[in-house]
Amino acid sequence: MKIDDLLRAYKPVWAIDHAKSLLEWDLEVNMPTEGASARGEALAHLTLIRREYLLRLKDLVEKFEGSGDLNDVEKGVIRVLKRELKYYTSIPPEILEELDRTTTKAAVVWREARRESNFEKFKPYLTKIVELERVIADKLGYEGHPYNALLDLYEEGFTVNDADEVFNKLLPNLKSILDKIRSEGRYPDKHPLEDVAYDVNVMKAVNEELLKILEMPVGTRFRMDVSAHPFTIGMSVNDVRITTRYEGKDFRATMFSVIHESGHAMYELMIDPNLEMTPVGRGVSMGVHESQSRFWENVIGRSREFVHIIYPLLRERLPFLKDYGEEDMYCH
Amino acid sequence: MKIDDLLRAYKPVWAIDHAKSLLEWDLEVNMPTEGASARGEALAHLTLIRREYLLRLKDLVEKFEGSGDLNDVEKGVIRVLKRELKYYTSIPPEILEELDRTTTKAAVVWREARRESNFEKFKPYLTKIVELERVIADKLGYEGHPYNALLDLYEEGFTVNDADEVFNKLLPNLKSILDKIRSEGRYPDKHPLEDVAYDVNVMKAVNEELLKILEMPVGTRFRMDVSAHPFTIGMSVNDVRITTRYEGKDFRATMFSVIHESGHAMYELMIDPNLEMTPVGRGVSMGVHESQSRFWENVIGRSREFVHIIYPLLRERLPFLKDYGEEDMYCH
Repeated sequence: MKIDDLLRAYKPVWAIDHAKSLLEWDLEVNMPTEGASARGEALAHLTLIRREYLLRLKDLVEKFEGSGDLNDVEKGVIRVLKRELKYYTSIPPEILEELDRTTTKAAVVWREARRESNFEKFKPYLTKIVELERVIADKLGYEGHPYNALLDLYEEGFTVNDADEVFNKLLPNLKSILDKIRSEGRYPDKHPLEDVAYDVNVMKAVNEELLKILEMPVGTRFRMDVSAHPFTIGMSVNDVRITTRYEGKDFRATMFSVIHESGHAMYELMIDPNLEMTPVGRGVSMGVHESQSRFWENVIGRSREFVHIIYPLLRERLPFLKDYGEEDMYCH
Repeated sequence: MKIDDLLRAYKPVWAIDHAKSLLEWDLEVNMPTEGASARGEALAHLTLIRREYLLRLKDLVEKFEGSGDLNDVEKGVIRVLKRELKYYTSIPPEILEELDRTTTKAAVVWREARRESNFEKFKPYLTKIVELERVIADKLGYEGHPYNALLDLYEEGFTVNDADEVFNKLLPNLKSILDKIRSEGRYPDKHPLEDVAYDVNVMKAVNEELLKILEMPVGTRFRMDVSAHPFTIGMSVNDVRITTRYEGKDFRATMFSVIHESGHAMYELMIDPNLEMTPVGRGVSMGVHESQSRFWENVIGRSREFVHIIYPLLRERLPFLKDYGEEDMYCH
């Protein structure tokens, strides 16, 4: 048996993922608010269709797994598909449907609640989502903490204990670095630029220039839009999209979100095109994804060298920077 | 047997239609150009999935049809589903797949060819599409002209003979009206405003005002975007979208396209919400749809009464109208 048979049978699943990505992107970027109910219904049914096509792969996966020596890509395909099969055989379809309906409506309500700083408005949705996720954790099964079942969906094999270990090591050291910085008094607790308002259209133009500096393939393989919370989504190796938001003050918030999301996007854009439409044709985990976005945002974006490149652009476009030198850009 | 069983089984088909509508809208409005190949592949697979779910309804349709007295909605559901069943049982799935892949790539190539006025660039795609449509006509079967099979997909029961009869009656009368107008010399062959350039951002603002005058539910159930050719698409009763284009001269072209597409959109927005997600929850035919759009564009949009409402807005926003009175607006 050749893996091609398995990959061919997987393509409808990929097609549904492609559609779901666009439906979710559109929900955040474009969808008229009252479209939420139909959108949630559509996503719920697409999940059930995806489930059906994925479960059909069971025999092919088992047959191929036992068919001899597998190369790395083939092993990856089998590993990912076995995780997916476990997911769909463990969780009742009604729970998956309900989760899609709830999260779609919740996305619209969350935006309103955020605008109004009104947590009570979002609370019933969050409660419902947590309830559903608890059921999913129970159905998936776990050792130790129930959250391990859910963590595993984003970072394979990672546990609450692993996270505690990482943070327990980091926290005391971070705290002592922070204490040292504070006691030296060189950097203010709050940078004065945080409160300075910007013109949204000017900042949009700055962000477009920033994408050019980052050499993002705008219009050909990439695009940037606006949403209530910035995110990146890959619909194919040749269609990766980021969003940012414009809150009207602190220009660095939107600028660093663009650099951050561009880091996610570069990762997706550099996936081997030969893996397109296969189970391994996407970012491998949340952790690897965040390593790319934060590398660009923090290690590159906040470096003296990068600020040196973008400072002339910022100075030219943002009139309130006339009192701030290049040095003032990276002290916070 | 109750129709609810049939309508429930139809919902995955509706969900795929919802997704395909968004994929097609996005292809025209947002998609980075190199995303076309994956988009075509996704659409092709979604068509095959839709086919599979639709064909599953066969027994339910037959059972329900024979189950006794049907009301009008039920008759409509059966009629539409039988047409769909005929479509999928007649046409080989490979042809449907090929059509999706070809038209998706063709959409991107058409835009380039249009921009460059280069028909040769688009020709191979058009040739391929015509070939595929000929196969589809043959597979569907027809009496008389082969195009009857394809016309029927857009206007049930309408034939080439019907179209000839309509046009043969209209043409001589239209010609004599035109001759009379021309011989009177009151109206110029070309209106001077046709060549006047406008500022695209100003015209966008004018069109947004126009949507308010038309009381379109912008942001809640409706939105307007830009594409190479204007169109309307309904994703649900509460999510209907139009597009227009800005060619930089002749402001009336974009203005009347907005009124025209708003006519289509009003029709979709006024569909009974109880029919949402059923086979009869959409515009009934191309002819009825065009009757709505052209009524708004021509009977209302070009009337003295409507011009009287919008002229102050146009005069205020478009500086080149200072030499033109309200009367000059509707002489062409």
